[in-house]
Amino acid sequence: MFVVIEGIEGSGKSTLHKGLVERLSMEGRDVVVTREPGGTATGDAIRSIFLDRTLTIGPLTEAFLVNAARAQHVAEVIRPALAENRLVLCDRFTDSTLAYQGYGHGLDLAALQRQCDEATGGVRADLILLIDLPIEVARARLQERYVLDRIESQDDAFHECVRQGYLELAKSPRHRVLDGTLPQDRLLEDAWNFISTS
Amino acid sequence: MFVVIEGIEGSGKSTLHKGLVERLSMEGRDVVVTREPGGTATGDAIRSIFLDRTLTIGPLTEAFLVNAARAQHVAEVIRPALAENRLVLCDRFTDSTLAYQGYGHGLDLAALQRQCDEATGGVRADLILLIDLPIEVARARLQERYVLDRIESQDDAFHECVRQGYLELAKSPRHRVLDGTLPQDRLLEDAWNFISTS
Repeated sequence: MFVVIEGIEGSGKSTLHKGLVERLSMEGRDVVVTREPGGTATGDAIRSIFLDRTLTIGPLTEAFLVNAARAQHVAEVIRPALAENRLVLCDRFTDSTLAYQGYGHGLDLAALQRQCDEATGGVRADLILLIDLPIEVARARLQERYVLDRIESQDDAFHECVRQGYLELAKSPRHRVLDGTLPQDRLLEDAWNFISTS
Repeated sequence: MFVVIEGIEGSGKSTLHKGLVERLSMEGRDVVVTREPGGTATGDAIRSIFLDRTLTIGPLTEAFLVNAARAQHVAEVIRPALAENRLVLCDRFTDSTLAYQGYGHGLDLAALQRQCDEATGGVRADLILLIDLPIEVARARLQERYVLDRIESQDDAFHECVRQGYLELAKSPRHRVLDGTLPQDRLLEDAWNFISTS
């Protein structure tokens, strides 16, 4: 089973991710914990470029970069883990590309989808947990961070487009929307229920 | 005018590139000198990953990486230079992707071409100078180099596939094939003639 957590910056993905890993481990589940962009040595090197505020990186370059990391991630980590019937829990996957580079930056969604399909070779998430919350709430959380990365530094209008894009994508039956304004333990409980019943 | 130099590792691309730049400058031509992967700060960062022998990078990841660098290169450097009617002289372009990841590693050529077209947004070279030479001659030159990079370290069978792929691509009217076994000054002379008459 392949579970993906998605959401805008400051939505609480990392906290939920950590909570779910603890819970899954307590239940004795064999879980592979990973993230995008990243998940491999090459992917982490690509991630450093991707988040580097000193670099100029256009939306199309971004799409190719995350799909480079993704192709390696699927081949090296995700596909082998799924073949061994392990549960894969991934922080971001193809929805991020569609939401940020597509809905956020206006790249053609069909072309992006084709690029993502090429990178994944058809591997798709079974369950996508979208943490949704208003931009203001997410922004307030981000302001507690010392230095914002290249993506976090984008303006609110951009992040609002990304949020609406995510909600559009979440209309599919593989998606569940979580209320990101809930306290952490309630959010974890809701996410756990969705995973348990999938 | 957009001129690209292509060829396998050890074919003498860099030497020819340098010679042509000197010649063009002597003639007072306004020339933009660049290379792939690279040509921008982001592209150079991607190049470092691409050539890193310590990383595991599959062919599909390679294709996405070079096209990430290319998208940025076209947007930031090549397209603006061509719009100002400057001559662009580039060490490697889309033929490298088709020759290495396609003919060399066996990725689907049509899919690669589509990916390259997406990255370039339709910008194509007017003239492609392919330096062709036997693998043994190229290999002998490479052995004089202290440390080989990730691509140079591939075996002869791979480089032979790349060479044959290049020759296949060079059947188009935009290509000219140069004899890479010629002395440097003769090679430069031939290349210069092709550029002057294009």
